[in-house]
Amino acid sequence: MLEAGAILEQVRSANPLVHNITNVVVTNFTANGLLAMGASPVMAYAREEAGEMAGIAGALVLNIGTLDETVVESMLIAGKGANEQNVPVVLDPVGAGATAYRTRTARKLIEELNIAVVRGNAAEIANVAGRNWDIKGVDGGQGKGDLAELAITAAKQFNSVVVITGKEDVVTDGKAVYIIKNGHPLLTKVTGAGCLLSSVIGAFLAVENNHVNAAAAALAFYGVAAERAAGLAGGEGPGTFQVQLLNSLSFVSSKEINEKAVIMNGGGKHESI
Amino acid sequence: MLEAGAILEQVRSANPLVHNITNVVVTNFTANGLLAMGASPVMAYAREEAGEMAGIAGALVLNIGTLDETVVESMLIAGKGANEQNVPVVLDPVGAGATAYRTRTARKLIEELNIAVVRGNAAEIANVAGRNWDIKGVDGGQGKGDLAELAITAAKQFNSVVVITGKEDVVTDGKAVYIIKNGHPLLTKVTGAGCLLSSVIGAFLAVENNHVNAAAAALAFYGVAAERAAGLAGGEGPGTFQVQLLNSLSFVSSKEINEKAVIMNGGGKHESI
Amino acid sequence: MLEAGAILEQVRSANPLVHNITNVVVTNFTANGLLAMGASPVMAYAREEAGEMAGIAGALVLNIGTLDETVVESMLIAGKGANEQNVPVVLDPVGAGATAYRTRTARKLIEELNIAVVRGNAAEIANVAGRNWDIKGVDGGQGKGDLAELAITAAKQFNSVVVITGKEDVVTDGKAVYIIKNGHPLLTKVTGAGCLLSSVIGAFLAVENNHVNAAAAALAFYGVAAERAAGLAGGEGPGTFQVQLLNSLSFVSSKEINEKAVIMNGGGKHESI
Repeated sequence: MLEAGAILEQVRSANPLVHNITNVVVTNFTANGLLAMGASPVMAYAREEAGEMAGIAGALVLNIGTLDETVVESMLIAGKGANEQNVPVVLDPVGAGATAYRTRTARKLIEELNIAVVRGNAAEIANVAGRNWDIKGVDGGQGKGDLAELAITAAKQFNSVVVITGKEDVVTDGKAVYIIKNGHPLLTKVTGAGCLLSSVIGAFLAVENNHVNAAAAALAFYGVAAERAAGLAGGEGPGTFQVQLLNSLSFVSSKEINEKAVIMNGGGKHESI
Repeated sequence: MLEAGAILEQVRSANPLVHNITNVVVTNFTANGLLAMGASPVMAYAREEAGEMAGIAGALVLNIGTLDETVVESMLIAGKGANEQNVPVVLDPVGAGATAYRTRTARKLIEELNIAVVRGNAAEIANVAGRNWDIKGVDGGQGKGDLAELAITAAKQFNSVVVITGKEDVVTDGKAVYIIKNGHPLLTKVTGAGCLLSSVIGAFLAVENNHVNAAAAALAFYGVAAERAAGLAGGEGPGTFQVQLLNSLSFVSSKEINEKAVIMNGGGKHESI
Repeated sequence: MLEAGAILEQVRSANPLVHNITNVVVTNFTANGLLAMGASPVMAYAREEAGEMAGIAGALVLNIGTLDETVVESMLIAGKGANEQNVPVVLDPVGAGATAYRTRTARKLIEELNIAVVRGNAAEIANVAGRNWDIKGVDGGQGKGDLAELAITAAKQFNSVVVITGKEDVVTDGKAVYIIKNGHPLLTKVTGAGCLLSSVIGAFLAVENNHVNAAAAALAFYGVAAERAAGLAGGEGPGTFQVQLLNSLSFVSSKEINEKAVIMNGGGKHESI
């Protein structure tokens, strides 16, 4: 059985260092979110130090939201440094499919590195996997198809856990499938809400070797925190919600997760856990 | 007659993709502001994708607040990609006049690209146009002269709509002149308030081909949102105001704009609309 | 006697331009904090303008939190531009000791530039000074030893004022020692709280030639603002605290500082002021 609350407790106790090479839009929010939840964020981009920092971190998170050649080179150096030290790596292929460069770069990172978890919306995952799916900019577009089936196919292809987030979230390593039904629509009104989630997954991976369980627990935690934040924001709007999300990442307890998390096995047609 | 509320409705209905190549200080606030108002932000800087992203966007916003040679090259690539697809381009010449490099770069962008709207404070516009005006850092300094006359001259020189923001805002294409009297002094206490406004103008340009009307409507919307935010902040200070500004960008309705917008024609000595 | 409130009044009256070359995580928060307190922030990184901007600023703040070769080159250009115009320079050696590259770069900046104030946590200062001290990522680790003694040694070695922040803050020029006992633990839950403090010190240096007094006054001001913010946040969490910190930087008065600042001379074993 998945003990999401217990993994959160481990994060808060271990205070893992999460090394982020992320986009310039979300750095501040990512760092504040990690601090609030009880992890220790660091950003380090230079090729001179990216490998060294990744090697001492508890997890490495690579996010291609504002990629360029220099940052991609640093991602490869950091990723290899992490792989050598068995530090788990999360990839967030922001906007894959929106431009050829993003799709190509996401695939290159998956080929050259050992990635523990790939997290994206359905369009991003589908585009990296070479499936047709609409995308508009960095927002997920409209696509058809069974999300669990897409996730399973991608997980096998990438040889990693795949997380597809949306109204419902899917987590799978290609065999076990979790569906997480927490969260709130206001998350789509805060830039970097998905990027921060990828880093939160990194913090959970740092303390839990079962990566599909760690990712599912992180999603449940984040979703419950978003629900709490929306309640506290009380209809004021996305500015207040963002502030309350940081507050909630700090305050949501393992007890609250265990009570409110809605984590389901992926259903009959997939292997159950 | 200018229907500011109707243009806002179009933005919220169309949810246009606004591609920003902007400074590292304001990326997060810009993205959150665009999301809050109902647009879809994307940042993409790499030469490998800047032109492709700009070509599929509804508007491109170029902001030189933390420019360097690499980003200027990307701005030119993106701008040409936008021009080819008739995607309107907004230029925010942050700090033009503060250093020779900024002034030179702003002029280069205006010469090499077809810019729909240039938005700045009086000092920035004057410096780009080669007029004397004091400037301190990136804040508008004290200058003398008729703002409408400065805006008209600059609009003719740049062959674009010019927006000068300050206590009162001026919008002109060199012939029609609008003066907008909305807004709040707390906007000067939030970094990137002007930068976000430039991106909001981009969102309005994406849905309205009359650029002078689109810009004036964007200013009225933003000013009314700031007034609402200041009322809700209730004297707490710039931190709370910033949060309430994001809330207000989400909540201000077309009805509220049409009631509260103070948009005047430029007066007797200029051609009226 | 140190008149912290009087120096704050001077900052608010002079509205000094503070030029920051800082990390990508904290740019927005730094700019908003400086605006809130009454200073005028500017960020300028390009080698083409860094020296020119630094030369017209009231202070220059160099922060290596997300350094790379390009930004280090700009820091050296800006630092020399500042030194030529007698503009005081603050160095924040974020994460020195976490990677060899950061330690090496901090030392290089101290060797090649005339630095007025170096501010860091104990681990950062110790590592730059070549003393053993644990560090984890960019957070101060656990170390032993007398902080005042460490600060005095480092100040003599760097030939600058040294500020070590933590539960208590130490400020010294190698002779005079101040211990400041203001502040709040929630500051450790907001990313860039230390980085912003370095920029606030820059604003105080811009108006007060006695650098040890200016730094001590800045610490007292910032600590009192944090205490006020924590009171207003009322246990809501780090999101609300961050908003209230910006509000408090705007509202804390010279009278409130003079009443609440706890600034002590460094005690018997050091030279008193």
